[in-house]
Amino acid sequence: MATIEVLYGVHPVTEALFSRRRNIIAVYVAEDRSGTEINKIMKLAKKRGAKLIRCDKHEIEQLARGRNHQGVAVKTEPLKVMKISDAIAFDSENKNAFWLGIDEMTDPQNLGAIIRSAACLGVTTVVLPGHRSVSITPAVQRVSAGAVERVNIVAGGNLNQAILRLKEEGFSIYGADMSGKSTTEMKYSLPAMLVIGSEDKGIRQKTGEHCDEIVSIPQAGGMNSLNASSAAAILLYDIAAKTGLCTKPRKKV
Amino acid sequence: MATIEVLYGVHPVTEALFSRRRNIIAVYVAEDRSGTEINKIMKLAKKRGAKLIRCDKHEIEQLARGRNHQGVAVKTEPLKVMKISDAIAFDSENKNAFWLGIDEMTDPQNLGAIIRSAACLGVTTVVLPGHRSVSITPAVQRVSAGAVERVNIVAGGNLNQAILRLKEEGFSIYGADMSGKSTTEMKYSLPAMLVIGSEDKGIRQKTGEHCDEIVSIPQAGGMNSLNASSAAAILLYDIAAKTGLCTKPRKKV
Repeated sequence: MATIEVLYGVHPVTEALFSRRRNIIAVYVAEDRSGTEINKIMKLAKKRGAKLIRCDKHEIEQLARGRNHQGVAVKTEPLKVMKISDAIAFDSENKNAFWLGIDEMTDPQNLGAIIRSAACLGVTTVVLPGHRSVSITPAVQRVSAGAVERVNIVAGGNLNQAILRLKEEGFSIYGADMSGKSTTEMKYSLPAMLVIGSEDKGIRQKTGEHCDEIVSIPQAGGMNSLNASSAAAILLYDIAAKTGLCTKPRKKV
Repeated sequence: MATIEVLYGVHPVTEALFSRRRNIIAVYVAEDRSGTEINKIMKLAKKRGAKLIRCDKHEIEQLARGRNHQGVAVKTEPLKVMKISDAIAFDSENKNAFWLGIDEMTDPQNLGAIIRSAACLGVTTVVLPGHRSVSITPAVQRVSAGAVERVNIVAGGNLNQAILRLKEEGFSIYGADMSGKSTTEMKYSLPAMLVIGSEDKGIRQKTGEHCDEIVSIPQAGGMNSLNASSAAAILLYDIAAKTGLCTKPRKKV
């Protein structure tokens, strides 16, 4: 039997119901809640044929282990991750494919925030190598405001092999590192993958060698550097803005 | 007697010792800690003439109330905030002055992250109106990785009045709102202030009317918007990059 996850809160629950990559077991809505967002959740549950349970708010409080649930929760099977070959096939007709590779990120807060930014800025696929990284837990799902349901997630593979596969497909690979060329001097071309590394060490040397270009964000003197999720947001934006990607609606998964 | 704050962790303690806007009461370093960062903290403490206490790590654990302290803590008076007239005087010779106004932000995590990005991207002064906003607590200081010590903080005033004062000084005022002009079409001029609003509602209408231009980040369809700190990082970067500000070292406070 597959593991069961509990997601809670309006955004995470709504996105889980939208997701085609989850089997929903049951949706819980507190009896004392109503309003547009709650109605939307109940409609979505009905549309998906999911079991809808109106219950006492204390039951949801238990499911969410006391965290802020906004009166809704969902029991679901874990997100289905994709193989890289399937993700490449998904984007085979998409000349504007924009991927994000995240190596060795250890903080779920940063990972969730980065996936949220990625989904907002036109990324279709996030590659999370299996090695020493956090995975898509309910906590990451929640911080991402449900964005993990809207992008393809390729997990568990080897990042350098993924890069080589994408280069064969004509992707440009941009690595983020403090030693890189200033973003203010960069032009980018799609399809592309941005590769970011761990919070403290950046990308690994071998990964850097596989990249077409290493980029960095120019910063003012006298301060420690930007935090990982702010830096990622800026780099994703720089690519999306300069290639004209984020003015166009993203192809839905 | 002034309230006493406890800051802990290598970054926050180091930055507090660098800060000229704090009276330091005592610095605590765990006996079992050593290394470059710890040595730097002890040197800084000595240089400032602060009381240095080597103690058992459990004492620091108590000071930090069980949170991750990395073996160091500091007892200090709260950060001195500035009056707007003093902050204007500070930047009077600075044609590249870059300010950030933050209205009604309620989440200390977001506020700390945004101030960190601001300091990294060349902001000299952060304006926090007194009304309904979080203030610079030790939690905010910590999330900012000590960046609150490196920028001028103007707190407690009225944001719209601050905007009018800055306009008299020749500042351009840019407001962030989903309804605004796309950043991809924007040019900016310094001195400038970027004004951002609350996590869910954006800037207030009257504040918007005082701005020279309202800007927004173009985003892909189908997703909720960027979170407040990612959006702020992108807007700060867009201004710093296009005006050439963040290639130049920032004037130290």
